[in-house]
Amino acid sequence: MPSHDEMVAAVEAYVRGFATGDVDMICGLFAPDAVVEDPVGSPPHVGTEAVRRFYQRIMNEGGARLELAGPVRTAANSAAFAFSSHLTRGGVSRRIDPIDVFDFDAEGKVKSMRAYWGPANLHDRA
Amino acid sequence: MPSHDEMVAAVEAYVRGFATGDVDMICGLFAPDAVVEDPVGSPPHVGTEAVRRFYQRIMNEGGARLELAGPVRTAANSAAFAFSSHLTRGGVSRRIDPIDVFDFDAEGKVKSMRAYWGPANLHDRA
Repeated sequence: MPSHDEMVAAVEAYVRGFATGDVDMICGLFAPDAVVEDPVGSPPHVGTEAVRRFYQRIMNEGGARLELAGPVRTAANSAAFAFSSHLTRGGVSRRIDPIDVFDFDAEGKVKSMRAYWGPANLHDRA
Repeated sequence: MPSHDEMVAAVEAYVRGFATGDVDMICGLFAPDAVVEDPVGSPPHVGTEAVRRFYQRIMNEGGARLELAGPVRTAANSAAFAFSSHLTRGGVSRRIDPIDVFDFDAEGKVKSMRAYWGPANLHDRA
């Protein structure tokens, strides 16, 4: 089971991967059979290729700047973290305020990512 | 499926229930077969009686004051929220910084509560 520090390091690498547009770094955090559900309730992205396509699409659309809001919470093999995601699409700046939950496998890879956010958490100005 | 506003209202009622020490109000938010896992990884409290015992124990120990940190995030039938929980036990003030996830049933009752926090999210001074 990954330690608190290892899970926090994974979250920080995830944030850094967005800051630098590094899809390889982001995808390297995930297990081969990872499931990404963003937002919760939407069709999940399952497995390495689907996960990569999802993050590559975000980067192709202009990326996002993630700003953690408060400490990373860890319990057992999970980490939960609140953040703001700043995006610019077609010259329009928007902010989404999600909470993500990462579940880790025994090797410290993310096997499940669930992003909790909805229309009420979307703001037209970053 | 409950609306965003209904889920936010449930979270706010949960916070208010702690503020007033109202175990009935808190337990009224949960479905009869609800599962409460606090923190994630600990043995879950399953069903009305076990859930009530769990919250009654917290109140008996002196209660807690919950302070939301940022907006409630909602997606599909789930709400996620970050907060600080201020407790006083034996004259010692402590603060826990959890993120809770509520999953709601079709009637708008909480069927699953998972609290993400660990030793690193526990602080000796409130």
